Amino acid sequence: MLNIGLLGCGRIGVVHAGSIARIEGARVAAVSDAVPAAADALAAKTGAQVLDSAALIASPEVDAVVIGTPTDTHYDLIHAAAKAGKAIFCEKPIDMSADRIRDCIEAVEAAGVPFMTAFNRRFDPNFAHLQACLAAGDIGDAEIITILSRDPSPPPVSYITSSGGIFRDMMIHDLDMARFLLGEEPTTVFAVGSALVDPEIGVAGDADTAAVTLTTVSGRICQISNSRRATYGYDQRIEVHGSGGMLRAANVQEHTIETANARGFATAPAKHFFLERYEAAYLAEMQHFVTAVRDGTVLAPGITDGLRAQMLADAASQSWETGQPVKL
Amino acid sequence: MLNIGLLGCGRIGVVHAGSIARIEGARVAAVSDAVPAAADALAAKTGAQVLDSAALIASPEVDAVVIGTPTDTHYDLIHAAAKAGKAIFCEKPIDMSADRIRDCIEAVEAAGVPFMTAFNRRFDPNFAHLQACLAAGDIGDAEIITILSRDPSPPPVSYITSSGGIFRDMMIHDLDMARFLLGEEPTTVFAVGSALVDPEIGVAGDADTAAVTLTTVSGRICQISNSRRATYGYDQRIEVHGSGGMLRAANVQEHTIETANARGFATAPAKHFFLERYEAAYLAEMQHFVTAVRDGTVLAPGITDGLRAQMLADAASQSWETGQPVKL
Amino acid sequence: MLNIGLLGCGRIGVVHAGSIARIEGARVAAVSDAVPAAADALAAKTGAQVLDSAALIASPEVDAVVIGTPTDTHYDLIHAAAKAGKAIFCEKPIDMSADRIRDCIEAVEAAGVPFMTAFNRRFDPNFAHLQACLAAGDIGDAEIITILSRDPSPPPVSYITSSGGIFRDMMIHDLDMARFLLGEEPTTVFAVGSALVDPEIGVAGDADTAAVTLTTVSGRICQISNSRRATYGYDQRIEVHGSGGMLRAANVQEHTIETANARGFATAPAKHFFLERYEAAYLAEMQHFVTAVRDGTVLAPGITDGLRAQMLADAASQSWETGQPVKL
Amino acid sequence: MLNIGLLGCGRIGVVHAGSIARIEGARVAAVSDAVPAAADALAAKTGAQVLDSAALIASPEVDAVVIGTPTDTHYDLIHAAAKAGKAIFCEKPIDMSADRIRDCIEAVEAAGVPFMTAFNRRFDPNFAHLQACLAAGDIGDAEIITILSRDPSPPPVSYITSSGGIFRDMMIHDLDMARFLLGEEPTTVFAVGSALVDPEIGVAGDADTAAVTLTTVSGRICQISNSRRATYGYDQRIEVHGSGGMLRAANVQEHTIETANARGFATAPAKHFFLERYEAAYLAEMQHFVTAVRDGTVLAPGITDGLRAQMLADAASQSWETGQPVKL
Repeated sequence: MLNIGLLGCGRIGVVHAGSIARIEGARVAAVSDAVPAAADALAAKTGAQVLDSAALIASPEVDAVVIGTPTDTHYDLIHAAAKAGKAIFCEKPIDMSADRIRDCIEAVEAAGVPFMTAFNRRFDPNFAHLQACLAAGDIGDAEIITILSRDPSPPPVSYITSSGGIFRDMMIHDLDMARFLLGEEPTTVFAVGSALVDPEIGVAGDADTAAVTLTTVSGRICQISNSRRATYGYDQRIEVHGSGGMLRAANVQEHTIETANARGFATAPAKHFFLERYEAAYLAEMQHFVTAVRDGTVLAPGITDGLRAQMLADAASQSWETGQPVKL
Repeated sequence: MLNIGLLGCGRIGVVHAGSIARIEGARVAAVSDAVPAAADALAAKTGAQVLDSAALIASPEVDAVVIGTPTDTHYDLIHAAAKAGKAIFCEKPIDMSADRIRDCIEAVEAAGVPFMTAFNRRFDPNFAHLQACLAAGDIGDAEIITILSRDPSPPPVSYITSSGGIFRDMMIHDLDMARFLLGEEPTTVFAVGSALVDPEIGVAGDADTAAVTLTTVSGRICQISNSRRATYGYDQRIEVHGSGGMLRAANVQEHTIETANARGFATAPAKHFFLERYEAAYLAEMQHFVTAVRDGTVLAPGITDGLRAQMLADAASQSWETGQPVKL
Repeated sequence: MLNIGLLGCGRIGVVHAGSIARIEGARVAAVSDAVPAAADALAAKTGAQVLDSAALIASPEVDAVVIGTPTDTHYDLIHAAAKAGKAIFCEKPIDMSADRIRDCIEAVEAAGVPFMTAFNRRFDPNFAHLQACLAAGDIGDAEIITILSRDPSPPPVSYITSSGGIFRDMMIHDLDMARFLLGEEPTTVFAVGSALVDPEIGVAGDADTAAVTLTTVSGRICQISNSRRATYGYDQRIEVHGSGGMLRAANVQEHTIETANARGFATAPAKHFFLERYEAAYLAEMQHFVTAVRDGTVLAPGITDGLRAQMLADAASQSWETGQPVKL
Repeated sequence: MLNIGLLGCGRIGVVHAGSIARIEGARVAAVSDAVPAAADALAAKTGAQVLDSAALIASPEVDAVVIGTPTDTHYDLIHAAAKAGKAIFCEKPIDMSADRIRDCIEAVEAAGVPFMTAFNRRFDPNFAHLQACLAAGDIGDAEIITILSRDPSPPPVSYITSSGGIFRDMMIHDLDMARFLLGEEPTTVFAVGSALVDPEIGVAGDADTAAVTLTTVSGRICQISNSRRATYGYDQRIEVHGSGGMLRAANVQEHTIETANARGFATAPAKHFFLERYEAAYLAEMQHFVTAVRDGTVLAPGITDGLRAQMLADAASQSWETGQPVKL
């Protein structure tokens, strides 16, 4: 039985607790949250102990921690958990600063603890299947990757200002997906961006509509586009054009019903809410964590993947600000 | 050069003239119509002579005739053309009476002239491809065939009363398609029907909504359904479930554009008008006629196919009227 | 908290226990099974008591029973549970004999206990959405319903002989779906059937390929086809053609990935296994049971729906055996 | 009757002659080609006179010319036809040099003759419908445009070396489409490219895999990607993400048949050959030319559109060569 301590009982903490309940060989042993009511509620549902974060990390009854607290607390929690010898599952981004992530890597490597960066989309069954087909050589070598990612609606401007910007907050998922699929590290990054959805986002110094082009050493190309608005749901599509064919991941729609009338044929919007859209991915990523920690096998994506995605997001931000491509 | 005489310059005659203009090695040599203006117009466009039907059939400058006149004139024209030794392309139905079709068969066989019954849907590139895949064994043996066929809107009741009823006027196309795909002759027919679209059609003694079940000697099953109404266009679909898989022909839509918004994803209606929907089929059937007559190869569907479809339509009508299955 | 006693801990019992675990306000309080190990295993997972069926039904700690035992035991369990005043959730078919179901109805009505017949497909989110659109008038009145239902592969012949035949064992789901969607009771039933998948099924006196046509008093038509074989997965499709349009439920595929190569574009098979295909339906039907019992609202489908579906299956069997349509 | 002189009787000349034959109010009056046999063949089919290019342009029996000769001859033919007062339909590119196109504009404007640049894709019924929906405000303002364009297979390297490179030879169509849809002129161009399909193309100094990002003054973004290889046919897709929704143009497949088996569901490749894929577009562009010349209405795309597309292709080439974005 893997005894897991949940650091953070907010929205994502509740999701992880629900996943753990559906996984054999794991349980929520302890929970902590800066808001006592949140911790109490989750404890009531799971039967876990409520502890403060230091006690949770120190507890001999906790084998592994799931970090779902605000980003600026990750650094200290990772260091503490590593020192305590716990396996670590950490929400993205690990930190807003690549240098501070490098510190975390040092701490984790020194302690020799397992670490997983929670890029949940890699575990979406559709995207995971696409990657498996690609890795199996079904379409030969990847040549052009197209990632289209649009949120149903923008966050409040107050969130934007502390988010690190669209490249670090939103596109980071797509940048990780690009790395997952390209099979090579990107060597150049070029970004453009505009505030078309909400002018206030532009005033706040950020973009809400953005596009990035990545290239790799062997000449593979990846185009990503993001928008903070999509009237038709949470738009999440990927396609890989390869030497021998193409792989495409379509959207996941709310239902399979088609309605026909004089206007033609209509189907459902894409699932709107990310927790619903990626429900299976959240379950699968936790399953991977539990299995790999139990069996001592490799955790992927690891802490270095968290750093690399952050470096790409930093480079994209810089390219957008300067109007010039950035080399890595 | 195959010199073709067009008997009938109405809507379907114009379509056939247009097809002949696109086919190498054939031309419209002569035209006739009970309405002189119709014949004159088509002559002006094609450069053909205007003749009365007897003169057209007798003309040594005519190698083949295309019969596109009202159904009740087919019998005499077929007999005359056969006697004159012309190749014959005849619109469906050959005649409303199976016995009179048998007379035509006798005349055609006695004369030894090529004869083609114009079941255009067999030549639709999609349906033709489906049949070719089936014949090639792509899904093993056919087991269940489902044919869904719906007109955009009902004809006037005045037409209904002289049409022979929905089974002979509309479903006959689907009954021929069933024969084309089943690979065996149907041995039982069971029909149901209602007047749901227009009560006047029911008063006139016909149905506007109908369904038929066919079975064959080896136990294959075919279900057909018809409606005289479809708000979303001319609905023409076929699927064949076989021992090794399934083949499906989807509708042909007006365009490929998909529009997404808060209601979801929308595509175009099915093409509404049968002349537009089956444009490629009309061209292909005439190409087949011209090529087969020129090369002396087999014409299919032939005159017996016209008889068999009519017998199935008669049986379906009888089943509907009696409420009992009919054996063939 | 609704305390549920599970009668039967086989495959379907385990599914229901899993559903109950995900539903707030309900728990598995007791379990029973003729095979002690099955009951023990489920008890270990849920924390329920193991009792024999009589004790379970008698237990004051049980508010409601879920009957997932072999069909021939339903009759006695329903009578006992009704007498004990328990709410009853019963797997389909209630019984192989319509007369014995009528006895059960009497017992349930005399006791005044809530009763739900577990036609799970009504709770599939896609089919439920289709029915809701239809009920909301999105396509006007239903005119032609087409239900296509194919199992991935046939059961062993040994199962067939005790199954009541394809109409009672397999098509009963589609017959219930037809009632769910037609909005009127069927008044005539015509059935055909063949043994095309496995000749041994024919030798055993059953069909493995079958089709039924239903009509209603106002002239609505429903065509159903079944096969015990589908190489491409568990094929479950419905379409309703109405006066104002059409509603269609497509298959649920294993994933959303499309692969393109020189052969064209390929997508995943339909989900193969019924427990996986209808996972959401099993959860939703149990949620409905728990909610309706708790709130005292109407349970649907009820016990009469179980009887009506069985009567349709009986009529279809009779039609197939006699070759004649059957009136209801 | 518009009397058209065809300059060039190669593959595209034959296409245009076929289109003219299907258009009322127009005919091929004269043809010319450097290869006499080509001119003679087309004359035999159309009944046109064979003339040399100077005589054709001078002929009082010619109202309009269609220029389908090699690109390096366009400049002189345009000047001569303009001087002779003929309406001009010219294949793309008008010329490889933007400056020489400017000379042509001067000549055309001085002569006041109608001029159409043959960007056929604007006339594809699907793309034209997409543009009409966009112009009608169906999805609000365009924000992100994605154009995916892949040829089935690369041309021989010998062609590459005289083609002007992938941006001028292939992507120019997509750059024109971007202008057609963006509603604003692009102000920055950034290009990347690689030789992944055929290393010889790289040795020849060109790319066979390329991507461009365009931005406009108001911040709209367009991403284009090209490959000289697509195993699944001629891949031609467009999508426009707007403030109110999305419009997408799917590929045109060879047929509508879907085959299902244990591997899943398979549909046809995209139409392979550009003449077949854009058959309707070639007809529609000629129809537009004939109608606009006859009615004296505006021809679009005009000669300036030819220049602007060339300037974008030049900028993309420069960006690719320098690795820097180019401002316009």
